[in-house]
Amino acid sequence: MLRMQRVHLPFRSLTSLPRQTSEGCVGGTRAAYRSKLSIRNVSTSKNESGSPRLVFSGIQPTGIPHLGNYFGALVNWVKLQSTAAPADKLFFSIVGWHALTLPQDPKLLSESRTTMVALILASGIDSQRSIIFHQDQVQNHTELAWILSCMTPIGKLKRMTTWKTRLAVSRNANDESEVDDSLLNAGLFTYPILQAADILAYRATHVPVGEDQQQHLELTRDLAETFNRTYPNPTPLFQLPELILTPSKRVLSLRDPSSKMSKSAIDPNSRILLTDSYETIVKRIRSAVTDSIAGITFDPVERPGTSNLLTILSACTGEAPAALAERYAGSNHGTLKKDVVEAVEETLRKPRTEFARLCEDKTFLAQVARDGAEKAQEHSDRTLKQVRKRVGLS
Amino acid sequence: MLRMQRVHLPFRSLTSLPRQTSEGCVGGTRAAYRSKLSIRNVSTSKNESGSPRLVFSGIQPTGIPHLGNYFGALVNWVKLQSTAAPADKLFFSIVGWHALTLPQDPKLLSESRTTMVALILASGIDSQRSIIFHQDQVQNHTELAWILSCMTPIGKLKRMTTWKTRLAVSRNANDESEVDDSLLNAGLFTYPILQAADILAYRATHVPVGEDQQQHLELTRDLAETFNRTYPNPTPLFQLPELILTPSKRVLSLRDPSSKMSKSAIDPNSRILLTDSYETIVKRIRSAVTDSIAGITFDPVERPGTSNLLTILSACTGEAPAALAERYAGSNHGTLKKDVVEAVEETLRKPRTEFARLCEDKTFLAQVARDGAEKAQEHSDRTLKQVRKRVGLS
Repeated sequence: MLRMQRVHLPFRSLTSLPRQTSEGCVGGTRAAYRSKLSIRNVSTSKNESGSPRLVFSGIQPTGIPHLGNYFGALVNWVKLQSTAAPADKLFFSIVGWHALTLPQDPKLLSESRTTMVALILASGIDSQRSIIFHQDQVQNHTELAWILSCMTPIGKLKRMTTWKTRLAVSRNANDESEVDDSLLNAGLFTYPILQAADILAYRATHVPVGEDQQQHLELTRDLAETFNRTYPNPTPLFQLPELILTPSKRVLSLRDPSSKMSKSAIDPNSRILLTDSYETIVKRIRSAVTDSIAGITFDPVERPGTSNLLTILSACTGEAPAALAERYAGSNHGTLKKDVVEAVEETLRKPRTEFARLCEDKTFLAQVARDGAEKAQEHSDRTLKQVRKRVGLS
Repeated sequence: MLRMQRVHLPFRSLTSLPRQTSEGCVGGTRAAYRSKLSIRNVSTSKNESGSPRLVFSGIQPTGIPHLGNYFGALVNWVKLQSTAAPADKLFFSIVGWHALTLPQDPKLLSESRTTMVALILASGIDSQRSIIFHQDQVQNHTELAWILSCMTPIGKLKRMTTWKTRLAVSRNANDESEVDDSLLNAGLFTYPILQAADILAYRATHVPVGEDQQQHLELTRDLAETFNRTYPNPTPLFQLPELILTPSKRVLSLRDPSSKMSKSAIDPNSRILLTDSYETIVKRIRSAVTDSIAGITFDPVERPGTSNLLTILSACTGEAPAALAERYAGSNHGTLKKDVVEAVEETLRKPRTEFARLCEDKTFLAQVARDGAEKAQEHSDRTLKQVRKRVGLS
């Protein structure tokens, strides 16, 4: 649940991207234009040759990610960057305007915006290779969102269910039946349109999203198609972005393995944050709830706590949980926990150190954001110029 | 009904504005902050001394205005300009983004954008004195609309009834019961938020609106108050704009005086457009439906056609309809029509000639729009900088 609060359009376990069949990211083939939403489960194979791709993904600036967020988004961004072809373009956006759909403390939000630039860089995203930018510094997003909103039937928005989840999380409700649309603001109701604008402003060809955001990408494709149909042109403006759905690494609470690891859970021992010290990692993994069954097996239903430790270890090492379970079959929980601690520490040490270093260099962080915004502006300007021309506002 | 299609935030019969009690347009007094929506019926008295006011009004670029639109909006803008104090600021916006809430032909919309600049100038607005600009060239409007949408409960939008009227008009429905929200797009549903952003981006102190738009200004004031409350500051960012409601000049169809003059009515003889030639005016007034009662009286219920001619004459000459009726009591319809023709011709001759001249000077029109956008940008930048700072997006 928390991931939705923090991560806008995450992708997970992504190691390479399928190639597009159409020419570049502008226009697109008739086949792509007519195609229905296709979901690709990405293999680990190297990139095949083909035309350049443009990937867009976003993350909300709402605090320090925990392990689940980190494996769910940032780690995959880095994998994506390392496997991208030279001509591919990668846009990673810190989506401040989306954060406003739920109440935020302005001071914390402002700090989180800068912190998130540091975290993205610390995770291994290279600002010379990928474009890191603040959504809220490129007004093309809100302009396009308005234009798209004029072609979005409210019936379609009503069928989106994510706002209920987000509201439930923000209100610490037990489930979605406890919230209704009397609590709903227009921003939260229409944010799938702003997401569509985020993606379409760059005419992204590939959008990595989590399962829960799949319906939003369908809306994006619908709107791209509606735009092309409403403003017919020998070269349709938008090609339909492809969804890249990657298997979810479901990291659970260390204190209550019946729920996901969550930033908003009351007990801080339930989570490990990207910036936690070695001592904290030790303390939290040691006190992680497991079970009293001897030996180690991977059984998420009967042994959620134990299996969660294997999931974390797997995420850190790349080895499959089942294979790990086999190796640890004769060990006790203490041994497993010790190794999980070391693996997590090994995984977080570099980003943590790098993050601390970057936080001291505010000038550099500001420069990265400025450069990113400039490039994002330039790129999206080309789309918006076309959009305005086609709708008649130029 | 048509006026709603064309005119965004019109004002009517406005000859002077009440002075503000607060200091300038930034911040505002606590009293203003707490005050309920106050409606002022504007007298014709000269401006009293006081602090400078900022007036915002908008018009949709959807074709040539007819007489009803002209008297309802443009004539009043000119009166407002002529009675404004030197320190007052006047913003007149051509609201292209609002036009998109209903289907538009892109080519016609694009032409109408330029035509509207010419029409505003031809009506007598001085681009050196007032700021004429295209809303769609100042992205601050859509950014602020997004931020405001995050504090607008959708329940409030549902209670706005204007979308039904607009949908009914656009679909040539007989009445509002023939349209429902299955036809509603998110742009039309949320356009009162964009209107609020139009106004608040300039921290307007005075907004002339028609009765049918009154609920939108209430929403604007609500949102201003919500923003100030959500982001408390010794200097509240927004003062609540004052509504200036002016008595409506209800110009009726010349063919069917049971309905308003309308651009979308099938019979072109039912209306006179701002650019119609003398010959057309003669033809249309001559064929105007009246009644077979002898003599002239002003009785909108029993004699709508006759009274409509008096209304038009009154709008052209400034004399009250009742006074005119007295003067024409012993005349026949032919005499009245002849005088109405001359009065309308007298009223439209100058704007029509000026419009024709301006349409030949596209360079000048583009320059006016460019200068206006630059000033509007500069002014709204100051507001948006504060908005971003207060919500935590800087």
